[in-house]
Amino acid sequence: MNLENVLPGDIEKRSMEIIQEELGEIILDETKASIIKRVIHTSADFDYVRTLHFSPDAIDKALAALKNGATIITDTNMAKAGVNKIGLAKLGAKVECFMLDADVAATAKEKGCTRAAVCMEKACEVEGPVIIAVGNAPTALVRLNELIAEGKIKPELVIGVPVGFVNVVESKEIIMSSGVPYIVARGRKGGSNVAAAICNALIYKLAR
Amino acid sequence: MNLENVLPGDIEKRSMEIIQEELGEIILDETKASIIKRVIHTSADFDYVRTLHFSPDAIDKALAALKNGATIITDTNMAKAGVNKIGLAKLGAKVECFMLDADVAATAKEKGCTRAAVCMEKACEVEGPVIIAVGNAPTALVRLNELIAEGKIKPELVIGVPVGFVNVVESKEIIMSSGVPYIVARGRKGGSNVAAAICNALIYKLAR
Repeated sequence: MNLENVLPGDIEKRSMEIIQEELGEIILDETKASIIKRVIHTSADFDYVRTLHFSPDAIDKALAALKNGATIITDTNMAKAGVNKIGLAKLGAKVECFMLDADVAATAKEKGCTRAAVCMEKACEVEGPVIIAVGNAPTALVRLNELIAEGKIKPELVIGVPVGFVNVVESKEIIMSSGVPYIVARGRKGGSNVAAAICNALIYKLAR
Repeated sequence: MNLENVLPGDIEKRSMEIIQEELGEIILDETKASIIKRVIHTSADFDYVRTLHFSPDAIDKALAALKNGATIITDTNMAKAGVNKIGLAKLGAKVECFMLDADVAATAKEKGCTRAAVCMEKACEVEGPVIIAVGNAPTALVRLNELIAEGKIKPELVIGVPVGFVNVVESKEIIMSSGVPYIVARGRKGGSNVAAAICNALIYKLAR
């Protein structure tokens, strides 16, 4: 078995070169390219070239928010674990996940809804600009859309990339029509890794 | 947009039903089915039906190890975050990741190798049965194969599902011929989410 001889610090660069080669004749929008390629890098799945959709203001709004000390709120601790803390610290931004909070579990049980939906309610209390990154629970996006409509939260960006089979496709279409800036992976695919990769691609545009 | 009305506690069950429906005429091996379906559930990617490969002893060895208080060692904190802690606690098993340890970073810099490779060296010092779950770094699998050949570690199971473009395919083939029990996603695809899903599918066979 022949291994390609690549120094540790060059593995990502070499990966990105391979991705670029395999994109062939596809020309990506310049501002979106680093985000789309990082998602392919994290998934080895070129479907995202087709499925990632950006509202026109998404990247500008997200970068402005990160520069203003935004809080990224994820719907899983996996996604939180995957967001680059060094980059966040350089920007004075942070990442939070409320999924394991005792009050979230209690409220979810009481209301008969998912903990992820309750996390979106808790996100309304966060001060300063917020970026919502949903990589798992479509119920989070559905509840978030209601909270946006009620004027209770106005995220600078919604990263809508839950994965799965029940209401996942629909939840993404719903959030795309909510009027807030979004980056969405249409269809069933996505995940905590994809959510974290999009956060990191945005962070790396400012701090790396 | 019509949402399917599914209670929070039934979302996973409904997802598994949809996956089973969409498998159509494919009949999965009974002992492997829950693992393969959980990986599809976490990725929405049916490619894993083809790409997941199991050594004949993999599941039996893994379940015995988990019952004997195994330590699962992951190559990312994302994978660690995704492993079900309640299930692990019921079994008296645990999960560790050494990627952020200061000594790992120092050794990697000194040796000019990846931190993930050094984590495998550190895994040799863990007492009791170990399950190695690699969802990110092919360099971890390559180093692990060397350590196995040198008799420095004998994992009860290697979950080999790194994702990416540089030496990923090759590292999986290498670990499949190392002589230890394995569950591998052949090809480029995998990830921390897939690694965690396989760990959880194994845990849920014993404790849920």
